[in-house]
Amino acid sequence: MTMSRDQLEEIAELRRSQSDTLRITVPELEAILYEPIPVLDHGFVRVVDYMGGDGSIVQAARVSYGRGTRRVSEDRGLIHYLMRHRHTTPFEMAEIKLHVKLPIFVARQWIRHRTANVNEYSARYSVLDKEFYVPRREHLAAQSSTNRQGRGPLLGDEEAEEVLEILKTDAERLYVNYLHMLNEDGQAGTGKRARTGLARELARMNLSLNFYTQWYWKIDLHNLMHFLQLRADAHAQYEIRAYADVILSILKKWTPITYEAFVQNRLNTVTLSARAVETVRKMIAGATVTKENSGLSSREWSELIALFEIKPQT
Amino acid sequence: MTMSRDQLEEIAELRRSQSDTLRITVPELEAILYEPIPVLDHGFVRVVDYMGGDGSIVQAARVSYGRGTRRVSEDRGLIHYLMRHRHTTPFEMAEIKLHVKLPIFVARQWIRHRTANVNEYSARYSVLDKEFYVPRREHLAAQSSTNRQGRGPLLGDEEAEEVLEILKTDAERLYVNYLHMLNEDGQAGTGKRARTGLARELARMNLSLNFYTQWYWKIDLHNLMHFLQLRADAHAQYEIRAYADVILSILKKWTPITYEAFVQNRLNTVTLSARAVETVRKMIAGATVTKENSGLSSREWSELIALFEIKPQT
Amino acid sequence: MTMSRDQLEEIAELRRSQSDTLRITVPELEAILYEPIPVLDHGFVRVVDYMGGDGSIVQAARVSYGRGTRRVSEDRGLIHYLMRHRHTTPFEMAEIKLHVKLPIFVARQWIRHRTANVNEYSARYSVLDKEFYVPRREHLAAQSSTNRQGRGPLLGDEEAEEVLEILKTDAERLYVNYLHMLNEDGQAGTGKRARTGLARELARMNLSLNFYTQWYWKIDLHNLMHFLQLRADAHAQYEIRAYADVILSILKKWTPITYEAFVQNRLNTVTLSARAVETVRKMIAGATVTKENSGLSSREWSELIALFEIKPQT
Amino acid sequence: MTMSRDQLEEIAELRRSQSDTLRITVPELEAILYEPIPVLDHGFVRVVDYMGGDGSIVQAARVSYGRGTRRVSEDRGLIHYLMRHRHTTPFEMAEIKLHVKLPIFVARQWIRHRTANVNEYSARYSVLDKEFYVPRREHLAAQSSTNRQGRGPLLGDEEAEEVLEILKTDAERLYVNYLHMLNEDGQAGTGKRARTGLARELARMNLSLNFYTQWYWKIDLHNLMHFLQLRADAHAQYEIRAYADVILSILKKWTPITYEAFVQNRLNTVTLSARAVETVRKMIAGATVTKENSGLSSREWSELIALFEIKPQT
Repeated sequence: MTMSRDQLEEIAELRRSQSDTLRITVPELEAILYEPIPVLDHGFVRVVDYMGGDGSIVQAARVSYGRGTRRVSEDRGLIHYLMRHRHTTPFEMAEIKLHVKLPIFVARQWIRHRTANVNEYSARYSVLDKEFYVPRREHLAAQSSTNRQGRGPLLGDEEAEEVLEILKTDAERLYVNYLHMLNEDGQAGTGKRARTGLARELARMNLSLNFYTQWYWKIDLHNLMHFLQLRADAHAQYEIRAYADVILSILKKWTPITYEAFVQNRLNTVTLSARAVETVRKMIAGATVTKENSGLSSREWSELIALFEIKPQT
Repeated sequence: MTMSRDQLEEIAELRRSQSDTLRITVPELEAILYEPIPVLDHGFVRVVDYMGGDGSIVQAARVSYGRGTRRVSEDRGLIHYLMRHRHTTPFEMAEIKLHVKLPIFVARQWIRHRTANVNEYSARYSVLDKEFYVPRREHLAAQSSTNRQGRGPLLGDEEAEEVLEILKTDAERLYVNYLHMLNEDGQAGTGKRARTGLARELARMNLSLNFYTQWYWKIDLHNLMHFLQLRADAHAQYEIRAYADVILSILKKWTPITYEAFVQNRLNTVTLSARAVETVRKMIAGATVTKENSGLSSREWSELIALFEIKPQT
Repeated sequence: MTMSRDQLEEIAELRRSQSDTLRITVPELEAILYEPIPVLDHGFVRVVDYMGGDGSIVQAARVSYGRGTRRVSEDRGLIHYLMRHRHTTPFEMAEIKLHVKLPIFVARQWIRHRTANVNEYSARYSVLDKEFYVPRREHLAAQSSTNRQGRGPLLGDEEAEEVLEILKTDAERLYVNYLHMLNEDGQAGTGKRARTGLARELARMNLSLNFYTQWYWKIDLHNLMHFLQLRADAHAQYEIRAYADVILSILKKWTPITYEAFVQNRLNTVTLSARAVETVRKMIAGATVTKENSGLSSREWSELIALFEIKPQT
Repeated sequence: MTMSRDQLEEIAELRRSQSDTLRITVPELEAILYEPIPVLDHGFVRVVDYMGGDGSIVQAARVSYGRGTRRVSEDRGLIHYLMRHRHTTPFEMAEIKLHVKLPIFVARQWIRHRTANVNEYSARYSVLDKEFYVPRREHLAAQSSTNRQGRGPLLGDEEAEEVLEILKTDAERLYVNYLHMLNEDGQAGTGKRARTGLARELARMNLSLNFYTQWYWKIDLHNLMHFLQLRADAHAQYEIRAYADVILSILKKWTPITYEAFVQNRLNTVTLSARAVETVRKMIAGATVTKENSGLSSREWSELIALFEIKPQT
């Protein structure tokens, strides 16, 4: 993670300027407010602002359900109930704003989540820094042979070395050429006159997808959990999952009860079709069930066998 | 506005529980936080939470435009610039949450604004209070003869009296029958057994559209201004405009610079077509322009004459 | 269902005006295009337009996954795969437009689904017809004693009779008063002058929530299935479920493969938490599992017992 | 534009497979359905499907406004009226689906329009073609000296030559290294064993932002016009404007009346603040108005002078 002295001073100043508020406040989140949490080689996530907490969800749910004032000790039960029964609107009543620095190819996956507000650094307007992502060797994997959009085993040392060399050399050269085309310093051309620099909005096209960009990203808690469910999943590309994991740790500080309910009832769950339920019912009752008499497709049968660690019945 | 003793005590308690925060805080808005502002005969709007202020917009705009740190005194110019040039995303970086009590027919117009989060009181779950809207006499207008969806002159005394009588009597009777069908107290039926009460989700259909409902409504500043532009407009129905006017006064406290820029550059503006611009250009240059040689439609010509208070040229 | 002669003639004419198109066409849906399908006592759903079909989903999925041209016979497998693995964007590539007539209290639940386009009949602009919903006796249920937002057993004959009488009488009176206040025919007042009619936007507030409204509703297939998952569910109020059931039958005609995949993998499914999976795993392996050693909450344990029809282990 | 023989054959086949439909059909759009329209050096836009046309807007507006059946000849007036008065929902009732091939840096601007459905070619799943954007010499402009995010005068011949050389050489090298890292053909490494290829999701990060991607993009007419208003504007980057211009020509074929109303009342319009209106009013009345007594800011005064071509009053 690379932060300039100016940025670090700005953060320190923000962390000194305390105010009084009557709003719901979450001390665990205040403790890390504005502080960047490193991700990958140059990226970070930092919480810039938030609205509400676990209490806001309870408050909103109780508007829907009317008068019934209950004791605080029942909040946990209510939040778990809402999560299990997919009552999603109370979770939309809390909001968080993050400042994220991330490689462009990660930004391209991230932006597909449309229900969020975004302000991105503009390379039409300003010059991008010389920061590009180079994977650590333990993340340099081969193409998976079974999953067309996944990774397989790690590359060998020699191959990894070559890939890292290519990635670094290419990005270095691109950035040198980017600066040369921009010519913001007004260097002289061959004829001793200052060369005219290329417009920023054009020069940027020469940079590769591992260069870093940054944005402010604001989202409500319900849609944040939807993002995390997809991006903290084992099928997500490692590089975006690294961000999702950091955001999960932020969620735990911000709304600890919701975090717990989310992990138990959304993140680590399995959905069974009606036929799979019927099959499991028979298995529990002790009946002999085979792929053939289950009525399941080969794919679903294999998944069921793996999920419940069922030994072949002979 | 009708608030129970319980609700008033809850508000008083919330207003006593102050916390420290490092977030952007707006003292003018804190001063009215949680306090209901009356609207119509039983309605209210109260600010329940907020995220950010004028400063958040500047902060977000500067991420987009990169390093250029400027002085605080230039914030006003930047916000006006963003407003005039429809750079809308920085305004999405501030958020507000309101608790609103409003007649159902107003709620039906309001909910058409889709980019917001809503938690409404559920009449499937709880019993609605006996609160219905009856217009003040100065709002009892006749159908407009020129605008199919507008109001014309006020009703005469006799007619107004009759309308008020009908509205009150009908709503009273509906509510009595609503409670009777619900029979939540378990009153005896004719045969002395307790009557079975009708399900709440069915009984509520007997209430009329002037009964009050309530909800939590959370929206970002950009979409809030879009709502206000449509609903604080002279063409909006008076009853929803009454809410929009109160929210405008909240906006002024929350983000005074944005409020000023909004009023000047969005709320009180006029859009001219290319042909209208051409026509005005000639008029200023002193040429004689008529409806015929302007190329404008009758409708657009009339609007132009009225807008610039142009006297017929003879 | 009440349709005027004009409306029926318009539908007949639309059904005669055939065109040539190069677009994806679904003959089973063309067969019912424009035709109203009755719902409740005066409501209907009719398909007014559609874009795409099962083929569009396959087409979109193959853009994402590149060159791999496959045989048509593999479409079914692909659609089931997309559904099971929640690859939702290809389902957004088909769109349908419905004309729906529905009671206002149903419309109020329906409109909460925000990702759709709506054009509703305006009672500010036009006069509403005298059509209100009165439930059939077999739908007049008591409040559930276990579920605060559900129905319990049916009302007895005497009570049902009384409720029906109240609903009809109240709605009749409201409509008479609505017309009287509007006075669109210009009837004379007491003083023999024509009474001034009340503005439509005001008079409508005297109607109750069982009056019918109507709208055009346009939505993509992915969001339509989300709507159906919530509204064709046993926990949805009967009156909106009646609409969802009709739309399910439309879905079956429009996209039969998607319909099948939806019913199997989304509509009739069960989600198990990580702990519940662990519990089932032990049960299948023959271990004795009790509520205590399962680590499940009472509520989740009961649900599991009921789902898999497990007999108490002694 | 580069299309494979397979793609061209597929298009030809689609254009031969005509069906009957009862839906609204637009012959002018059918005439170009599926046919790619070239944009930039390798890009294209082609219409893949559509729902509705000018008639759908009228149909939807008339549901809102009730019975009033009017003659077809009044459709034009109605559409212009809706456009001028920002009644946007009827325009949401028509939908179009485009297949677009575009450079990644253009895709990154495009995707910020969130109210659309997208299926993009996945470089996690498939290998990208060797197609990258190189500007024509007449688009190689210098950075603007007045507008931080715009272009100024064209580069000189020598500078342009150098930029083109850099862009081509860098992209060529990146693609060679991309294929080398992927090693999809299983070429031998130094030790004569086949080298292990890098996962596609990683290798793609070495490509630059001028490489082409492609997607299906589906949007309703209202949101399409919003996109066009921003992207067919003189302030938009030339490369995305090239796409917007092609889509404008598609709009003209699809909904000619809406296109006309859009161009007149939205695309080429000017918005005046209340103070600017007051200033113009005085000018037309013949009063001497100066920057000082107008109350306008310097910026707004200059814009007004330029807009109405006002000569300094002496």
